[in-house]
Amino acid sequence: MNDRFLRACRREPVDATPVWFMRQAGRYMPEYRALRAKHSMLELCRTPELAVQVSMQPVNAMPVDAAIVFADILLPLEPMGAPFEFAKGEGPVVHKPIRSVEDVDALHSFEIAEGLGYVLETLTLLRRELDGRCPLIGFAGAPFTLASYLIEGGRSTHFEKTKSFMYSEPEAFSRLLAKLSDVTSRYLRAQVQAGAQALQLFDSWVGQLSLTDYQQHVAPHVKSVLDDAQSLGVPVIHFGTGTATLLTAMRDAGGTVLGVDWREPITTAWDRIGPNHAVQGNLDPAVLFAPWEVVEAKARAILDSTRDRPGHIFNLGHGILPTTPVETVQRLVDFVHEYSANKAESA
Amino acid sequence: MNDRFLRACRREPVDATPVWFMRQAGRYMPEYRALRAKHSMLELCRTPELAVQVSMQPVNAMPVDAAIVFADILLPLEPMGAPFEFAKGEGPVVHKPIRSVEDVDALHSFEIAEGLGYVLETLTLLRRELDGRCPLIGFAGAPFTLASYLIEGGRSTHFEKTKSFMYSEPEAFSRLLAKLSDVTSRYLRAQVQAGAQALQLFDSWVGQLSLTDYQQHVAPHVKSVLDDAQSLGVPVIHFGTGTATLLTAMRDAGGTVLGVDWREPITTAWDRIGPNHAVQGNLDPAVLFAPWEVVEAKARAILDSTRDRPGHIFNLGHGILPTTPVETVQRLVDFVHEYSANKAESA
Repeated sequence: MNDRFLRACRREPVDATPVWFMRQAGRYMPEYRALRAKHSMLELCRTPELAVQVSMQPVNAMPVDAAIVFADILLPLEPMGAPFEFAKGEGPVVHKPIRSVEDVDALHSFEIAEGLGYVLETLTLLRRELDGRCPLIGFAGAPFTLASYLIEGGRSTHFEKTKSFMYSEPEAFSRLLAKLSDVTSRYLRAQVQAGAQALQLFDSWVGQLSLTDYQQHVAPHVKSVLDDAQSLGVPVIHFGTGTATLLTAMRDAGGTVLGVDWREPITTAWDRIGPNHAVQGNLDPAVLFAPWEVVEAKARAILDSTRDRPGHIFNLGHGILPTTPVETVQRLVDFVHEYSANKAESA
Repeated sequence: MNDRFLRACRREPVDATPVWFMRQAGRYMPEYRALRAKHSMLELCRTPELAVQVSMQPVNAMPVDAAIVFADILLPLEPMGAPFEFAKGEGPVVHKPIRSVEDVDALHSFEIAEGLGYVLETLTLLRRELDGRCPLIGFAGAPFTLASYLIEGGRSTHFEKTKSFMYSEPEAFSRLLAKLSDVTSRYLRAQVQAGAQALQLFDSWVGQLSLTDYQQHVAPHVKSVLDDAQSLGVPVIHFGTGTATLLTAMRDAGGTVLGVDWREPITTAWDRIGPNHAVQGNLDPAVLFAPWEVVEAKARAILDSTRDRPGHIFNLGHGILPTTPVETVQRLVDFVHEYSANKAESA
């Protein structure tokens, strides 16, 4: 098996830097758009055969070093009693957003095998389909990020409803995050049992919080999820964006690998995280719209700066954007492998 | 005159910490909503008597230590040949976004007194109307932030069109920023001549850039604007959000005061900026939706941590949000004054 990705997560020597991309299965690929013309996003997620097909599209199109199951961080919300849909051009819309303490208490727990059995089935089928070509990553949304969708009712710019609830009803907010943490922990465990060989926890919007609020209201819940996940014996990637001010607190909350976005040089972030963690990142997704010379120069700068540090996983700082040129993504995968392999030889 | 604000900008001793708020004139005030029911946003900006009235609303409602002229950072775009409007619920919409090198070259320069004479008239009237109650702040958008609206055509989440243009057409992008810098410099100079006693440069979205891209593509233009502005003899506030990774580069680009958002403790940011600059911030605007005890605790933490540092101007980390309770804003102004005055006495 190509185990570069898993070895890098454990900070072991690798023959070349592993590379995969958040949202590597998605709208930028014509194969994906063809399927989406016939099926909604949620249909794709809920039909294991289709979800496997989508997950395999980037693996077949380029030699990425990890596959990630096609799913959405919001999938656990429906079986908790908070159904949602993806509205055209608007992103997710939660039908009845949380507005009160009672709304929090009305959310219920559920058996993962019942409420999210289709994701587990996808993982099992996908692991078989991959047949050792590369490891399989499972994932979930972190409690704060999930709570923000539940409270805002969808995407947000300023997260004022979420923060307002957090400040006004701190105990109910904590109960909400505890409920989400419990579901998330069991979901991640079930994913590993179903075949996931690594996990990523997406706390995509946590960078909106002040350090103090993160530490007080969020970190304890994240820590409980990550402590649990790390006990499963697989690498766990802890990811957020805009987190320069939170990185050490996120590291303390847990994860074997820390995700870093493009806002600062990866080694500046890594120096704060310390040498005992692997780091994933950190090309700006918008760079993939640039002429190849710019993409290459920026990828090279990342690889040059990390060459003496075991445990670098090449990725973007956030997901691939919908209109990204496929050829650039493919060429980047090859470049990362070739350039880092040559470095490994000359070192 | 109440000159606390100007004294703090110069890091001189003050009797109490000065406080004002970005967007202190705006939708959260019933007086403003009453005017907006009769006039569009652009009508308010373009009618000096109305713009003065709006600018005075917060000054009359609470003892803020500075007034800021009611205007919008996008106003210079129309006289450059890029008209826009504020679409309901969508924010600004630029009718013909920049898509090519030719579009950049088609933007033209203009005389500030002609294209933006109404802002200058507002400043002169407003300065007279204030009659020394507090100093008057003028402002402008920074070149990158203005360019992002021109290229995206409005607000953006990922700024991929802007970055794509920056990477693909670096020379045209630089010409665009140089054109915007020239207009901005002359606009700020004219504002001081018309009565502004301090200036703020809003680079609101610059935190989307990597440090490397900021230094390469943006900082030289910002520096030219700020060098010019600082030669006018008034304090200049250099503001952005999500800028934890850019702060020292922003400081090097210029400004007598650095704006800091809520994502890290204000003194952590100030330690990186160094003691030779005043600092403005840094309460999360969403905190104003919290119960008073939370607002007070967070304001107190900011004031406690800055008590031994000359040059703190209390403000939010970004503009007041539209549905913020007015009473909380008023109470916060009083609290900042009373709490910091007591500290000053006991020190």
